[in-house]
Amino acid sequence: MATSEPRATGGEQDPNSDNLRPPSTRFLQKNNSLDDKGRLAGQKNLLSCDNSDRDARFRLTETDFSNLFARDLLPAKNGEEPTIQFLLEMVDILTNYVKKTFDRSTKVLDFHHPHQLLEGMEGFNLELSDQPESLEQILVDCRDTLKYGVRTGHPRFFNQLSSGLDIIGLAGEWLTSTANTNMFTYEIAPVFVLMEQLTLKKMREMIGWPDGEGDGLFSPGGAISNMYSVMIARYKYFPEVKTKGMSAAPRLVLFTSEHSHYSIKKAGAALGFGSENVILLSTDERGRVIPADLEAKIIDAKQKGYVPLFVNATAGSTVYGAFDPINEIADICEKYNLWLHVDGAWGGGLLMSRKHRHKLSGVERANSVTWNPHKMMGVPLQCSAILVREKGIMAGCNSMCAGYLFQPDKQYDVTYDTGDKAIQCGRHVDIFKFWLMWKAKGTIGFEQHIDKCLDLSQYLYNKIKNREGYEMVFDGVPQHTNVCFWYIPPSLRGMPDGDERREKLHRVAPKIKAMMMESGTTMVGYQPQGNKVNFFRMVVSNPAATQSDIDFLIDEIERMGNDL
Amino acid sequence: MATSEPRATGGEQDPNSDNLRPPSTRFLQKNNSLDDKGRLAGQKNLLSCDNSDRDARFRLTETDFSNLFARDLLPAKNGEEPTIQFLLEMVDILTNYVKKTFDRSTKVLDFHHPHQLLEGMEGFNLELSDQPESLEQILVDCRDTLKYGVRTGHPRFFNQLSSGLDIIGLAGEWLTSTANTNMFTYEIAPVFVLMEQLTLKKMREMIGWPDGEGDGLFSPGGAISNMYSVMIARYKYFPEVKTKGMSAAPRLVLFTSEHSHYSIKKAGAALGFGSENVILLSTDERGRVIPADLEAKIIDAKQKGYVPLFVNATAGSTVYGAFDPINEIADICEKYNLWLHVDGAWGGGLLMSRKHRHKLSGVERANSVTWNPHKMMGVPLQCSAILVREKGIMAGCNSMCAGYLFQPDKQYDVTYDTGDKAIQCGRHVDIFKFWLMWKAKGTIGFEQHIDKCLDLSQYLYNKIKNREGYEMVFDGVPQHTNVCFWYIPPSLRGMPDGDERREKLHRVAPKIKAMMMESGTTMVGYQPQGNKVNFFRMVVSNPAATQSDIDFLIDEIERMGNDL
Repeated sequence: MATSEPRATGGEQDPNSDNLRPPSTRFLQKNNSLDDKGRLAGQKNLLSCDNSDRDARFRLTETDFSNLFARDLLPAKNGEEPTIQFLLEMVDILTNYVKKTFDRSTKVLDFHHPHQLLEGMEGFNLELSDQPESLEQILVDCRDTLKYGVRTGHPRFFNQLSSGLDIIGLAGEWLTSTANTNMFTYEIAPVFVLMEQLTLKKMREMIGWPDGEGDGLFSPGGAISNMYSVMIARYKYFPEVKTKGMSAAPRLVLFTSEHSHYSIKKAGAALGFGSENVILLSTDERGRVIPADLEAKIIDAKQKGYVPLFVNATAGSTVYGAFDPINEIADICEKYNLWLHVDGAWGGGLLMSRKHRHKLSGVERANSVTWNPHKMMGVPLQCSAILVREKGIMAGCNSMCAGYLFQPDKQYDVTYDTGDKAIQCGRHVDIFKFWLMWKAKGTIGFEQHIDKCLDLSQYLYNKIKNREGYEMVFDGVPQHTNVCFWYIPPSLRGMPDGDERREKLHRVAPKIKAMMMESGTTMVGYQPQGNKVNFFRMVVSNPAATQSDIDFLIDEIERMGNDL
Repeated sequence: MATSEPRATGGEQDPNSDNLRPPSTRFLQKNNSLDDKGRLAGQKNLLSCDNSDRDARFRLTETDFSNLFARDLLPAKNGEEPTIQFLLEMVDILTNYVKKTFDRSTKVLDFHHPHQLLEGMEGFNLELSDQPESLEQILVDCRDTLKYGVRTGHPRFFNQLSSGLDIIGLAGEWLTSTANTNMFTYEIAPVFVLMEQLTLKKMREMIGWPDGEGDGLFSPGGAISNMYSVMIARYKYFPEVKTKGMSAAPRLVLFTSEHSHYSIKKAGAALGFGSENVILLSTDERGRVIPADLEAKIIDAKQKGYVPLFVNATAGSTVYGAFDPINEIADICEKYNLWLHVDGAWGGGLLMSRKHRHKLSGVERANSVTWNPHKMMGVPLQCSAILVREKGIMAGCNSMCAGYLFQPDKQYDVTYDTGDKAIQCGRHVDIFKFWLMWKAKGTIGFEQHIDKCLDLSQYLYNKIKNREGYEMVFDGVPQHTNVCFWYIPPSLRGMPDGDERREKLHRVAPKIKAMMMESGTTMVGYQPQGNKVNFFRMVVSNPAATQSDIDFLIDEIERMGNDL
């Protein structure tokens, strides 16, 4: 992500970029010498800029959209001009939204209850009808949609692991939508398929698998990536389950931390293991799996006649940001011949930081890894990778060889048709925005972003760890950007620990959160965990956030919580 | 979709649109009276247009991107201007792409083999590096990405069930990317969550479920939607599988047509049934399930000790476009108490056509329906709905009640937090583009699009059914837009049927397809099916296609195939 450093420090350029620049870049240079005559030559158009080297640049004209309809746009006859004008009006709405998102005087959200929005806000009618609306109304609807939404890119939006609005990623998504294709075959997505392949290889190199070899895909989110890992593990050890079902396998069990993401349990339920056969591992006070507990539970399961199959180690847990000790878990997996998956949906991004990647030490011993660039790395939603050490196993696990899609007699190398590796058929192009961001920032750009976010969270930790009115949920510097804390209103500060205080404290975070949302100034998450009552979970992944935003959050919590 | 009718016929306006127009629309009207003075007032800017009612419209300026980097964009200090200029440059690239996509003199694709693209085409380097590239290089990379891709919106792109480039849908996707949020909670996607709810209700009404009641979600594609249906069916009849796994159920079998989409088998494999326990049903010569075969196979399975659970009826099969007889299948499902799923991924759109919806007669008796607006209805990829008749069952099937995300003590009605119904955690906003298209076209707009596509395919059928050099794969007017045929080159026309002719004919379609891709003029799919050698499967879902494009396709096939 672009940092807020001055331009002077940002001057280094790829030494190869001159070589890489093809002739078509000349339009950019030529444009720079566009003279006033050229600029003002337009008659009816606000901008007329002819450039014989390339297509005409867009011209923003005066258009009355009140009598235009969708049917007047391309491919309609004479639809080109209304199409371009409509898209430019949309871009006008969107670029204004982008500007305001980064403006701290803008609210994070303008909250309304479901029934209010359903009743219709100032003419914003969500109902669908038989007859078309004019393009003018469509543009208004778009403005309203943004108006009543949540600005997840706002510097004070801290509510989710995914936050921020990366401009390169955004541009990449706009291009992806315009290309409107599907990842299942090289035939219709040649460039995107290759970009995915190269990017996955690069990610596997960062994990530390030899030569970046292995398998992988981008999937629709970390939960599906984790589901893939369980499916692939099952296929590795009991390939006959694919054809014969779970009755062909013994009673299998999976292991994951009690702090791990709920998607492991969901995968267990969906894939036919049963959620009760997902055995939860105890953690230390920081939320990290206790390896001895894993071994004890493996032995116990075996004694009960179950067959241990799979262990998930979390690299960056959802609430505490804890990193399980991968090496110690890997030792146990090797000893008992179990599949080791690392769920790095949240923490995987730290592999890009020389300072922080040690927290995933041992990840190269994993059989599979989930890594969501849409979280810590600020890639727009969604962008999640499942990476697998063994090459070819995904196709073995999932292929059904559909003749209508994966013809073996195409004229190109059909090993590039990746669709049969997936549980999806059509697959959205999630790679391009990520590839483009990587090009635009370089690995060092991601590293700087991650280091900055971790610095910011340490700033928050240092600020509140001894501050009056705060209690940390766990001691010590957080491993990830998660800072978990209770705010104790003055009315509770003298109260002895006990059920009454617990009950009251449990209601503090929801009340403050509700006030935040009503006032629209900031958003941060809260939840209970185990026997701990509701506490705030602050996370930093938003590249727009600064120390002043952290200060603002604390001020808001105190302002809103002071009288509770 | 916008049709190519003249504007005069497109003048009808929603009678309510005046009431719906909120004050904020005034900017659009005001803009219309912008005077020349306002237009030319800019000094350094090409366009300067102040309007006190609203934010400034964008200003396209001369920007040298060769010394600008991602880190110079927002949220960088002084990043606003480079951000807007960068996005506008991107829009310039994209709007040019859009224009050319609808221009028949543009190629559908500029084909290169994987190794060619990997080696780098004229400086288009796919490799990622540690150091950032300039924004100038990024813009060039974007142009190259589009240049070497496939124009799926081109009027002569017929290769996939999803084709076309809907301008409203495209604008909707641009907005979705800019909002960059997640469907899992009302908290961060209030408007989108409500739009999804209303749209799903509308779809259920069209299916014919009373009052549009029921359950549903948009999922990442038809394969996942079909997977949901199997999971939900299992949960309905054997809810204990969720916690205890498949060992808590008897040996379950699923039924689906031999012509059905491979995702039913994939779901069987993934969910632990085993692909062999997905029993394939015989079809008639048109690819429609023979109900008597279903009943015979149900009885056979029961006799062998299996428990029939689920029947999939396909509404619009992938290759033939066949509609299984839903009512007759529903009778059997009722008799044997089985879950009936209708896979209308491809054919569901016909529910919007008064002329063609009878082909799904009986769909209201289904327990669940897959319906992909991204196929027949031209919504950008991806947009797939799983619709379920029983309300609340999706949450029962999938919920894991993650405390960090689905807090019960929020200030709003948390029944709007839909995330726990999904197997995904994060879920991309697939609804907005569809909702916006529905607003912009009305139901009648979708109907017109569907009727037009079916008319076009009938035009193709009539053109080739008795034409020299063509054999139809099945007799009679196609039920959907699928027209399946062999082109017989002159060299094979006199040849008696037999292995030699079959082998030669099998190679014709791949050869013609390869030539099409090399020349880039058009694209159409082919495949074998059962014992039938490779044949072309023509499908029409592209709103840009006309009779002249159908004629062009046939001309191309004959031109390329004449000497084979």
